[in-house]
Amino acid sequence: MIQHPAFAVEPWAVRETELHLDVLAQTESVFALANGHLGLRGNLDEGEPFGLPGTYLNGFYELRPLPYAEAGYGDPESGQTVVNVTNGKLIRLLVDDEPFDVRYGTLRSHERVLDLRAGVLRRRVEWVSPSGRPVRISSVRLVSLVQRAIAAVLYEVEAVDGLAPVVVQSELAANETLPAVRGDPRAATALDSPLYSLASYEHGARVVLVHATRQSGFRMAAGMDHLIEGPPDTAIATETGPDLGRVLVAATLEPGQRLRIVKLLAYGWSSQRSTEALRDQASAALAEAGHGGWDGLVSAQRDYLDDFWKHSDVEVHGDLELQQAVRFGMFHVLQAGARAEQRAIPAKGLTGPGYEGHTFWDTETFVLPVLTYTRPQAAGDALRWRHATLELARERAKLLGLRGAAFPWRTIRGEGSSAYWPAGTAAVHLNADIADAVIRYQAATEDEAFEREAGLELLVETARLWRSIGHHDRHARFRIDGVTGPDEYSAIADNNVYTNLMAQRNLRAAAEAAQRHPDRAAELGAGPEELAGWRDAANAMVVPYDQELGVHPQAEGFTQHQVWDFAHTREDQYPLMLHFPYFDLYRKQVIKQADLVLALHLRGDAFTEEQKARDFDYYEPLTIRDSSLSACTQAVIAAELGHLELAYDYFAEAALVDLDDFEHNTRDGLHIASLAGAWIAAVSGFGGMRDHDGVLSFAPRLPEMLSRLAFRLTYRDSCIKVEIDHQHARYRLLHGAPLQVTHHGQSLSVSTAETATRPIPPSVSRETPAHPAGRAPARRRPPVPRRERPDTKTYSRR
Amino acid sequence: MIQHPAFAVEPWAVRETELHLDVLAQTESVFALANGHLGLRGNLDEGEPFGLPGTYLNGFYELRPLPYAEAGYGDPESGQTVVNVTNGKLIRLLVDDEPFDVRYGTLRSHERVLDLRAGVLRRRVEWVSPSGRPVRISSVRLVSLVQRAIAAVLYEVEAVDGLAPVVVQSELAANETLPAVRGDPRAATALDSPLYSLASYEHGARVVLVHATRQSGFRMAAGMDHLIEGPPDTAIATETGPDLGRVLVAATLEPGQRLRIVKLLAYGWSSQRSTEALRDQASAALAEAGHGGWDGLVSAQRDYLDDFWKHSDVEVHGDLELQQAVRFGMFHVLQAGARAEQRAIPAKGLTGPGYEGHTFWDTETFVLPVLTYTRPQAAGDALRWRHATLELARERAKLLGLRGAAFPWRTIRGEGSSAYWPAGTAAVHLNADIADAVIRYQAATEDEAFEREAGLELLVETARLWRSIGHHDRHARFRIDGVTGPDEYSAIADNNVYTNLMAQRNLRAAAEAAQRHPDRAAELGAGPEELAGWRDAANAMVVPYDQELGVHPQAEGFTQHQVWDFAHTREDQYPLMLHFPYFDLYRKQVIKQADLVLALHLRGDAFTEEQKARDFDYYEPLTIRDSSLSACTQAVIAAELGHLELAYDYFAEAALVDLDDFEHNTRDGLHIASLAGAWIAAVSGFGGMRDHDGVLSFAPRLPEMLSRLAFRLTYRDSCIKVEIDHQHARYRLLHGAPLQVTHHGQSLSVSTAETATRPIPPSVSRETPAHPAGRAPARRRPPVPRRERPDTKTYSRR
Repeated sequence: MIQHPAFAVEPWAVRETELHLDVLAQTESVFALANGHLGLRGNLDEGEPFGLPGTYLNGFYELRPLPYAEAGYGDPESGQTVVNVTNGKLIRLLVDDEPFDVRYGTLRSHERVLDLRAGVLRRRVEWVSPSGRPVRISSVRLVSLVQRAIAAVLYEVEAVDGLAPVVVQSELAANETLPAVRGDPRAATALDSPLYSLASYEHGARVVLVHATRQSGFRMAAGMDHLIEGPPDTAIATETGPDLGRVLVAATLEPGQRLRIVKLLAYGWSSQRSTEALRDQASAALAEAGHGGWDGLVSAQRDYLDDFWKHSDVEVHGDLELQQAVRFGMFHVLQAGARAEQRAIPAKGLTGPGYEGHTFWDTETFVLPVLTYTRPQAAGDALRWRHATLELARERAKLLGLRGAAFPWRTIRGEGSSAYWPAGTAAVHLNADIADAVIRYQAATEDEAFEREAGLELLVETARLWRSIGHHDRHARFRIDGVTGPDEYSAIADNNVYTNLMAQRNLRAAAEAAQRHPDRAAELGAGPEELAGWRDAANAMVVPYDQELGVHPQAEGFTQHQVWDFAHTREDQYPLMLHFPYFDLYRKQVIKQADLVLALHLRGDAFTEEQKARDFDYYEPLTIRDSSLSACTQAVIAAELGHLELAYDYFAEAALVDLDDFEHNTRDGLHIASLAGAWIAAVSGFGGMRDHDGVLSFAPRLPEMLSRLAFRLTYRDSCIKVEIDHQHARYRLLHGAPLQVTHHGQSLSVSTAETATRPIPPSVSRETPAHPAGRAPARRRPPVPRRERPDTKTYSRR
Repeated sequence: MIQHPAFAVEPWAVRETELHLDVLAQTESVFALANGHLGLRGNLDEGEPFGLPGTYLNGFYELRPLPYAEAGYGDPESGQTVVNVTNGKLIRLLVDDEPFDVRYGTLRSHERVLDLRAGVLRRRVEWVSPSGRPVRISSVRLVSLVQRAIAAVLYEVEAVDGLAPVVVQSELAANETLPAVRGDPRAATALDSPLYSLASYEHGARVVLVHATRQSGFRMAAGMDHLIEGPPDTAIATETGPDLGRVLVAATLEPGQRLRIVKLLAYGWSSQRSTEALRDQASAALAEAGHGGWDGLVSAQRDYLDDFWKHSDVEVHGDLELQQAVRFGMFHVLQAGARAEQRAIPAKGLTGPGYEGHTFWDTETFVLPVLTYTRPQAAGDALRWRHATLELARERAKLLGLRGAAFPWRTIRGEGSSAYWPAGTAAVHLNADIADAVIRYQAATEDEAFEREAGLELLVETARLWRSIGHHDRHARFRIDGVTGPDEYSAIADNNVYTNLMAQRNLRAAAEAAQRHPDRAAELGAGPEELAGWRDAANAMVVPYDQELGVHPQAEGFTQHQVWDFAHTREDQYPLMLHFPYFDLYRKQVIKQADLVLALHLRGDAFTEEQKARDFDYYEPLTIRDSSLSACTQAVIAAELGHLELAYDYFAEAALVDLDDFEHNTRDGLHIASLAGAWIAAVSGFGGMRDHDGVLSFAPRLPEMLSRLAFRLTYRDSCIKVEIDHQHARYRLLHGAPLQVTHHGQSLSVSTAETATRPIPPSVSRETPAHPAGRAPARRRPPVPRRERPDTKTYSRR
């Protein structure tokens, strides 16, 4: 695995003190700033060198044809792919006529810091031009969590010794040339010049460019304005063309003298609003941001994040690297969802073009559980986005010969974009995952308006899907045949346990919600007969069990398949999907990502502890984590079963997925779900938090190496703080009405008045399960801060 | 279904007496001439109007990229697609400066006759030009079964009354414009100008054009020469360009006077030979054909076919329409395979571009059983072609992580061209089908050289595939998981009964053949340990059985799936694959084509009669025959079980597939396997012929409407004639050494000396099974010759 040697370990920041061009693309993802609406990759201000330039607007996509050599009925003809929009973060610098480019001249010092409390990316560079002219350059970049359309850069150049004639070109550049795409299906299509110019507008140091896409027909505006402070001779000029806006600032700096430019950026897009409306919208946003100025933006950003951390921080004591990683992950989850506001939360957030910018089940299953308890409004917004796509999902269900709604496996705006149906359309569990997120959000927020406006309908339409996709067999058992579960190394199997149990919850919850709101249910046409049908199906749901082995097969027949030959699979043959055909993978027992084990977590209420232990022991030796959506789930179940050191290893893997580039594709964007998984591993793993049936329960237990874990959750407008050490757990409300929770099965009332302290019972001792040869998680030894490590990996494989 | 109103019912010809432009493409397929090397669609001599122009050379293809919106490891990047090569059958006529085109002027009479004994297509037309000039035009076209490279046309024009100035343009035309392809995946890609010119050569009335393909890099030569007889003033001129050779013949005909042109055509292609070599090869073939002249070609053709019919004819008494259809089918099977000579036999023969000109399992499973007993040399050649592709199949197996050979699901030259793996790569039964054809051919011919040179290695390498694709489970049972059987409305299932039983036969036969030839087996590295492994696997083969229903599930779990809602499926929603997604089809009990029932036929030795009866009763109500590879198999099992009238209906459906255009795609080429299936339905159905374990057995029984059935088979150099009526079967050898066969289980020696007559025992009376709503075969009532029928269908649906 590639490790970045220069990230320092600090509790509240990710700091890079050396620039390594070979991992530039990875750092661009790590240092990306976003607010759920607008995302800027951490590209260098001057644009080059780059790994992958990227500026994204949530929901703004182009259509691309989906070709089929052998087409099947119902295959979607075009897919949606995220567009790299007009680049506004570009600030080129010429010193003494030499362009500032770290590949030339001498880079005396380099530092980039992603400040997780301030919500800014700081850069500080000392550079000597090829002609020997030294300058100090600093920039601070932010994407506002408060003012959704706004990003800003504070850019400063200082002459170090001797006169420095400098020219700064601050740009808006559309249709940047992108590097060619490699042969990895997880990367994105690079669109060639996706935008065409509709209008360019300039006024003083303000420029607005309006563009549109060719096929999807969306319009977007990008605007910039500048606040410039420099020596008296500072000259300013503005130029504008169809794909380029440029404000040129020229000055001659004396030693110690600075040129200071605040660049304000505003973005907006619409599928309906006119060129002129978008142009004016960008100008207005710039005016508002200019009103408070740089300091106003910075202080609002800080306030927003102070509030977030106050109610959501996770403290990890005893492993500073994981402390950093967990906060890094939460920061990016927040950036992905905070201001998405009824747009999807993509798998990569807005940090890169991986997976074409699509949203998958990751959102509901991994990201929303975190947001539900830390930023409930954002979770509700994401579900309202799903609700807004219901009509498309109903059409898709109809196309598939089903009733209700069939949400698309991957999409940006709700239309199906999946071109390989066995791992797309067939993965219908997505619909139960959405329902599960609705149930969780509803229980955690008691948001009545949401339930009536969106939640109930989502439950009803997904329940209808299950009722029509499954059938009662001759023994009146309800079967769901020919579907694909979470594990993408199996497909089109009968009675996937995860799918059936999640569908069961979905069916029941739909019936309950309909009974809570009989008037709304009637409007949706869900009467008593239909509700009875859902309950029948749920009660009769087939859950296959292999009596002989005493375990649940992932799906019918699974435990009879041949076990993958792990012993003869080389390290360089992972991920298997890039080296073996699906034909080979599907026939065998090899698991890309937790499937049955995910059922043990999300439907833990449907298994006995003994079943969980046996199932976990069975699936651990088969699970290779070729997906980043696995380690956190394995951490949760390992922790529940008392395999605390193993849980700790998985926790680390989930949390470090991008800081350590475990999947070798952080360049294409961050793994937002795995980063969310770090929170899940901490809170649901070591905190033992579960939320089955609307009851918040905890069963905390720490691995040896952690001395203390503390986390905060928002639940029904109360904020609970849980602190855990090896002997005790302490529960207290930071604010809100008292809450009933459980601690290791014992009921507990938590209030603001006093801290409830409970002892942690010893865990059952179990033998650590085996793992596939070479695929055990890296053993996390007593933590060594990353900076002190040698460049080669320090983790030993067990 | 479209029925052609103008095909007359005759025993030895297909005659069309009216020209219907709406079914022109269908008649072009029906009237196609081919010899396995060269195929000419039955396009009108003058080129237009056309349904689909077509001239094909077996094995001559172009590569086309296979696009994937989501590619998987191992997906082939390019596919092979048949090329419409230089059209040499083109003879344009101008009468009084008006082009002869049936869409203009008046067509006084029209007749086309495909003569199944002469092996020629005759056409006779009387046409009055728009300016009122009447002419008689006749042509006779043949593709020589004797001289493989040669086709010829005898073209005559006669003035009827008044002087007729006529100009004949006899052409070779490359890169014809093809009509656009419709959205049916079974149709072919239309390549735009696939050929580029390498050389043009002319000498007198002889022209040779040499072209090449761009991607596959094949070269081909097409040559024409002419023997012209006309009035003294007849003028002849030749012109040649890169894509056009044209011989112009001008004459003025007095009433009753004729212009007679014999056009000789020669075709050759190579992936290796030079432009000059191919040019000379075509010229030489023309010279040889010119030597014997038109009469020589016609008489050799007749001799060839006389010999074929003498040893292979099937006489159907009591239903002249089916008599015609069976001979029509056998004629086309012969045309597809006769001179293929180690090239593949495509699914459409050389009659059209359907399925891109690819070969599938149809060849081994449906076509080769017919050729094995009627033209054994052609069957051996087809299997030697498979053997020639072994290296590619070994590479493919390796790519799939398997040992031995994995033959491609669809191909022209051996490379895999399947872009949808669940119904391609996963359909590994193809390998056992090839082995089965080897076993059958070997038993029927005792061709020692074939076995040592090709047969043994085919068996060994396919056995290795099975040994590596399956595995012994914890009860030492041998399972084959995650594969697709013949039924294309199910996929990726465990232990498909057909596949497992065919693999079992394959494994056993490989071990036996290796023991017969220990020296060759040793050269192939197949020692006693490996043979023991094959036998173990065969003996331990899992054959799932549903105890509760008392039937064999098509594959594990199948009988628990939901039954397709036939009652609510409209007639216009068939074939289902064009109206429902695979996701829907695969989850349900709906069968496109015989799968388990095919096992009842080909592995009839593995089932009891009671099992067959129960299984047939179970599968009949689920089988909709959206594939033409089903009716014949259902006919065979229906006949075996005593459902003789049902068998008769299926027999008719298989036999009339193209004459009645049952599948609505005869335009793209004939269904060679279904036409072969007519023979199978007659011989293995009503004749009850089986060839399990090297024993030829018969169990004849006729449906009520047939008075007599007679057929001839070649077996181990003996030719046996079997005649059946309702009371008796008569067996006699036409030549060769005496043969041991069985008649309804009783042993019987058959010789040239005397006719052995045996009574036919009464059949067990069984209730006719049910059929899916609207999908029962058309009930064949006492036969009405097609000509006497009204235009609408006369079959009632039961």
